[in-house]
Amino acid sequence: MFTLYSMQRSGNSYKTRLALAQLGIPYRLVEIDILKGESHTPEFLAKNPSGQVPLLEVAPARYLAESNAILCYLAGGTPLAPADRIEHAGALQWMFFEQHSLEPNLGAAYFWLTLVKGGRELQSHAIEDWMEEGYRALGLMEKHLALHDYFAADRYTIADIALYAYTHIGHQCGFDLAQFPALRAWLARVAAQPGHVTMEFNPAEAVAAV
Amino acid sequence: MFTLYSMQRSGNSYKTRLALAQLGIPYRLVEIDILKGESHTPEFLAKNPSGQVPLLEVAPARYLAESNAILCYLAGGTPLAPADRIEHAGALQWMFFEQHSLEPNLGAAYFWLTLVKGGRELQSHAIEDWMEEGYRALGLMEKHLALHDYFAADRYTIADIALYAYTHIGHQCGFDLAQFPALRAWLARVAAQPGHVTMEFNPAEAVAAV
Repeated sequence: MFTLYSMQRSGNSYKTRLALAQLGIPYRLVEIDILKGESHTPEFLAKNPSGQVPLLEVAPARYLAESNAILCYLAGGTPLAPADRIEHAGALQWMFFEQHSLEPNLGAAYFWLTLVKGGRELQSHAIEDWMEEGYRALGLMEKHLALHDYFAADRYTIADIALYAYTHIGHQCGFDLAQFPALRAWLARVAAQPGHVTMEFNPAEAVAAV
Repeated sequence: MFTLYSMQRSGNSYKTRLALAQLGIPYRLVEIDILKGESHTPEFLAKNPSGQVPLLEVAPARYLAESNAILCYLAGGTPLAPADRIEHAGALQWMFFEQHSLEPNLGAAYFWLTLVKGGRELQSHAIEDWMEEGYRALGLMEKHLALHDYFAADRYTIADIALYAYTHIGHQCGFDLAQFPALRAWLARVAAQPGHVTMEFNPAEAVAAV
């Protein structure tokens, strides 16, 4: 059985929990509080030298990091990953976009402005860039969603899961989604998918939470 | 035949040219100078709303963006992409790491400090973060390469191509690689691969350069 090292308030961790739930894959959950330094213990760093969650033990003592790589791994061969070669690449395109253009801005704002005490002062030099680049990313998503219901393959896939995680909490860190009607409609479509779970962890999701 | 929209001085574009060359795939090259605004013309934005290169026309009027998604698309089913499920996910892990932790630091430093006139002044608030986070990423790569010759599947793959592009020009924008011996040895191994091409474009690479 898979073991997932995850932090409940991490959007990147949430992606993997959401995919596991929708794929009906049982797993053992280990909560790692990165704010308490639990991802930088020698024991955890031996599993993932980058000191980040999520981390999936995919085979005994074999660990996979990076949330979107975990999504690809879990969804391979299922309806959550496009089978067609061009459509699959299209999903990956949006997943790389997410890690390059959305997460470093919305995710950073979420982490420093809502989770870390004193984060706003520590990161005051960066906030304007996060806002500008974050709104730029949201604008590109809006443009796509004005013409399409989902990001790839005309259906709900791991590209949507990847992009949903930080977008749906954007309002918590100062991003006003009112100006993005297509994006808000997409958020509602994603939340209405069968087997959807919220970022607030429900112990029923996992077989065993440690 | 594929058409690649690319900028010679872009590390992200270089990745795709390197893969195309090593896979022996003929293509038509269109040079787009983003510094002259050529990626923000109405014509280009209709192809790629994000206004970025590289961009690959994979079928008539079907465009694929994001360098690492293009690498996955081109390398699928070839020795450059691991076939094993866990190894394939391991390659993706490093490719997402590249777009999240390496490119936004080394790539940004390269762009603003070497290509854009006055970039150092415009981005003075961000340079310290690029350096700190860039060295952190290089340190993680060094740690991996101290134990492995390549990033995934124990052989040269698209993960190496993705990570090579900005690492091999890190010294041009202030990153001192002297402290990373395993990484320097890996750079040499990558440059010695059959069919390697340099970032300096050679017209013989493409069938037709426009």
